[in-house]
Amino acid sequence: MKLKVYSNIEYQVHQPSTFIFNIHALRTSSQIILEESLEIDPYLRVEEFSSANGANRFVRLKVEEKMNFKLSYKATVDTFPRLIQFGQDVEAVPVVKLDGEVIPLLFPSRYCQSDKLQRLAQHTFGQIPNVFAQVMAITDWIYENVVYLSGATNSQTSAHDTITERAGVCRDFAHLGIALCRALSIPARYFTGYSFKLNPPDFHACFEAYIGGNWIIFDPTKLAPLNGLVKIANGRDAADAAVATTFGNVTCSSIEVGAESLEPNFEPFWYDKSVFTGLCIE
Amino acid sequence: MKLKVYSNIEYQVHQPSTFIFNIHALRTSSQIILEESLEIDPYLRVEEFSSANGANRFVRLKVEEKMNFKLSYKATVDTFPRLIQFGQDVEAVPVVKLDGEVIPLLFPSRYCQSDKLQRLAQHTFGQIPNVFAQVMAITDWIYENVVYLSGATNSQTSAHDTITERAGVCRDFAHLGIALCRALSIPARYFTGYSFKLNPPDFHACFEAYIGGNWIIFDPTKLAPLNGLVKIANGRDAADAAVATTFGNVTCSSIEVGAESLEPNFEPFWYDKSVFTGLCIE
Amino acid sequence: MKLKVYSNIEYQVHQPSTFIFNIHALRTSSQIILEESLEIDPYLRVEEFSSANGANRFVRLKVEEKMNFKLSYKATVDTFPRLIQFGQDVEAVPVVKLDGEVIPLLFPSRYCQSDKLQRLAQHTFGQIPNVFAQVMAITDWIYENVVYLSGATNSQTSAHDTITERAGVCRDFAHLGIALCRALSIPARYFTGYSFKLNPPDFHACFEAYIGGNWIIFDPTKLAPLNGLVKIANGRDAADAAVATTFGNVTCSSIEVGAESLEPNFEPFWYDKSVFTGLCIE
Amino acid sequence: MKLKVYSNIEYQVHQPSTFIFNIHALRTSSQIILEESLEIDPYLRVEEFSSANGANRFVRLKVEEKMNFKLSYKATVDTFPRLIQFGQDVEAVPVVKLDGEVIPLLFPSRYCQSDKLQRLAQHTFGQIPNVFAQVMAITDWIYENVVYLSGATNSQTSAHDTITERAGVCRDFAHLGIALCRALSIPARYFTGYSFKLNPPDFHACFEAYIGGNWIIFDPTKLAPLNGLVKIANGRDAADAAVATTFGNVTCSSIEVGAESLEPNFEPFWYDKSVFTGLCIE
Repeated sequence: MKLKVYSNIEYQVHQPSTFIFNIHALRTSSQIILEESLEIDPYLRVEEFSSANGANRFVRLKVEEKMNFKLSYKATVDTFPRLIQFGQDVEAVPVVKLDGEVIPLLFPSRYCQSDKLQRLAQHTFGQIPNVFAQVMAITDWIYENVVYLSGATNSQTSAHDTITERAGVCRDFAHLGIALCRALSIPARYFTGYSFKLNPPDFHACFEAYIGGNWIIFDPTKLAPLNGLVKIANGRDAADAAVATTFGNVTCSSIEVGAESLEPNFEPFWYDKSVFTGLCIE
Repeated sequence: MKLKVYSNIEYQVHQPSTFIFNIHALRTSSQIILEESLEIDPYLRVEEFSSANGANRFVRLKVEEKMNFKLSYKATVDTFPRLIQFGQDVEAVPVVKLDGEVIPLLFPSRYCQSDKLQRLAQHTFGQIPNVFAQVMAITDWIYENVVYLSGATNSQTSAHDTITERAGVCRDFAHLGIALCRALSIPARYFTGYSFKLNPPDFHACFEAYIGGNWIIFDPTKLAPLNGLVKIANGRDAADAAVATTFGNVTCSSIEVGAESLEPNFEPFWYDKSVFTGLCIE
Repeated sequence: MKLKVYSNIEYQVHQPSTFIFNIHALRTSSQIILEESLEIDPYLRVEEFSSANGANRFVRLKVEEKMNFKLSYKATVDTFPRLIQFGQDVEAVPVVKLDGEVIPLLFPSRYCQSDKLQRLAQHTFGQIPNVFAQVMAITDWIYENVVYLSGATNSQTSAHDTITERAGVCRDFAHLGIALCRALSIPARYFTGYSFKLNPPDFHACFEAYIGGNWIIFDPTKLAPLNGLVKIANGRDAADAAVATTFGNVTCSSIEVGAESLEPNFEPFWYDKSVFTGLCIE
Repeated sequence: MKLKVYSNIEYQVHQPSTFIFNIHALRTSSQIILEESLEIDPYLRVEEFSSANGANRFVRLKVEEKMNFKLSYKATVDTFPRLIQFGQDVEAVPVVKLDGEVIPLLFPSRYCQSDKLQRLAQHTFGQIPNVFAQVMAITDWIYENVVYLSGATNSQTSAHDTITERAGVCRDFAHLGIALCRALSIPARYFTGYSFKLNPPDFHACFEAYIGGNWIIFDPTKLAPLNGLVKIANGRDAADAAVATTFGNVTCSSIEVGAESLEPNFEPFWYDKSVFTGLCIE
């Protein structure tokens, strides 16, 4: 499916500052970038680099003086999300068989303190035998028990806060989903992306759980169809995949994000509890 | 310097369980393993694997039934720690010049919530111009303000707890050091190892800060000479480099750890505030 | 019902220290003290005093030197707990009609951070129309979702911890019950007492909710019959009603607590979901 | 000293709601109310009541329907703050000699978790022998280490947060002062009031420490002269003495607060480190 995505971000820089942005669509076998551009007005030199595992596409730039600037990214992306059908008895991949690079995604992280949620997760979801159904149940539980409320949380809010406060935005919903999965020994990772039909338009955050050897996407906000997502980044949590990390004294004055389908017949895809079909964007 | 290190760990396994151990001495250019062995009694098959970045050496094993076992690791290691002399004006490597793989070590992690310590770190250490002196000051501050107290903390304790509670063990001291460094935009990572002359003998934890392009070791406990360390692992924090991670119902019944020098003339090395000489184990 | 209760507590005093004890059975219209004695061996002068509202009976003493001592309290108490029958439509007393002295028991306190549990409480229990059934549901929820686990918590553990960690002892169960009630604008207070048939014998903690103008007892541990309780104290939480508060350097070396019925036919009383009958000990 | 104080608060009531206000100047021997009025527009019946200890003056009202209203309080108050001169060796009142009603002000409370700050307080302030100098040092430490920053905190923020985050408003400064005092076994309580020369004008919060048998005022914000304060309430912390507590769905649309001196020659009084003179408003 062909999508056009874009983001325009404006900053006021009060002092010399460094920026790391993570807004480029990811290049994967199921996500082909047909065309993309990054513009900065006024012109500033940026450097692209990758994170340790060669995946996420970062750019960084240093602004040496007080000024305002606008960053504009746009891309045309062709996505091929795969549908994966799980059997009634799909189980979590045993830890002893996990790839070395998957194992850290079992561990607690800054915003996903799975070590603190062991009993709660085990008590609430531990009896569900099928691992896909288990993650579905986590997703549904978050959707039903946490209120989507803009402004209720900030950049320090973690799963440990949200499990009690019961309010947050997509980032908080994703962190809680990840923490609950890891508490059940299901590897899980953070996902950021562009999202078609997300309302209001913004960057989106979801999570992926490792089921049957594939990373399957789950969105506890249920705000947008899963097949309209364009992946920007994966990470342990938002600490790894922040849209923007700034070092210095700056103010973000505007963010505009969008995604449009370039195909006339978009058939929105959502999970259906009665069938065990997951969607994989890798 | 030649060292003999060993660890013997005994477990009672109550149910089928999986173990991940991280107790092997690391192979690096400054740490040559002359000889090593891992024995499990009774015999159990183990598999060695590496973490994502190819560094830490993990082994894992699955125990299928109720039983007791003992893991015995020993190694003879030749270490070549480097002394690095910093000038009066050494500064942190600017974010814009950091390697892509170093950048995540600026971000907050499970046990090192640097985002919550920004003002405190800036207020207390921000005025020190030399980055080596800055990390020395952090190390000294922890040593003076936090009580080393066995049993005061547990596996959930984080830097955010320790900055208030002011008590902990080597792991907690290291986490606080890392969090304070990152809060000042100095990359920092967790270090576990064997430690000669540590009293009582145990696994040891310290931290490394990235100064002038090198990872320099700091030990806020000041419990053992820096040149008697043998590195096991690095990581963001203890979540990445736990000596043992267990999945199942097990009890650790005994841990015995040791390090001996095989050279007659060990000259203990400690930092001296009046000279800016750091030690690098890479 | 006649009960004999006792507590024997032994301390090692390492330095001059002050103790406040709250172990005397309370004198109320439904709890008559027939006989009681407090002995300290070796003899130390104690002073009895009351808290601000004239209720709880404290004693304090100062130990001027390094020594060991043993405190022994025993009492024979006649209790007259009242059964109160609520209608199908009993509602919480409106805030606007609450006595001035009840109002502070709506506010959050050290161990009962009701302000942080508003959404959770409202979402989970807010739809139950009858206030007695609401508090019963809270009690049952805690019983089913929190594991009674000695040693899992300490004197700093609060309702905010327990709602996530899901483990604790009677004190933690009581704090969580209080916090959830207050989050629903139901006044609630902490209760400590002696408890007949509690196993293992110890001081017990429960909570009281203000329903229809009476303080009704609830015990989320369900460890002992409600009519075997002898009240020691009420308070906002354990900060107000600790069995012992110590100032100095002391070690508690032994605690022995007990309660026996002096009547041959003790008929244990427990709540029954199908009838709205509460028990009041005032 | 004669002062005129006032507060005007406007609410939008979206559903039937109950309000408790605590905005009346307190009546004490050192604070005489010459004249006062409370008006509500449109007219609503209010009821005045006192808290358990007979001190704070609350009013409450119930609004039965969706509406807007404005509450206007004004008073002319004559205050007689006492200056108390302490000797070089003033010590904290020993716990064993404290009045029963003072003792609860040694205990931790919702926003003042003194139990978690014991080591920090003892390490930082424990060596200062004079108790007045000790509380002065606490006040100065907060002033120097915590940034006054509107909007940095909310109604859930506690001393445990502020000791780490190092930012807040008068309420947070007061909570931290109280927690540090109690951690040193110095009774301390919350103070709210009107404040002459506070800029910008608002309700003010400080704290009182119990020294030599008197409640002495301390203001870690140092924003206003101590002799321009008019006391509204005391309490364990802001949970006891909130300006407004609301039950229902309401929005506060405006708050206007002020204090003016009716005497031509106001001589501002501040503490001076070199003399041990405290100010008492009781």
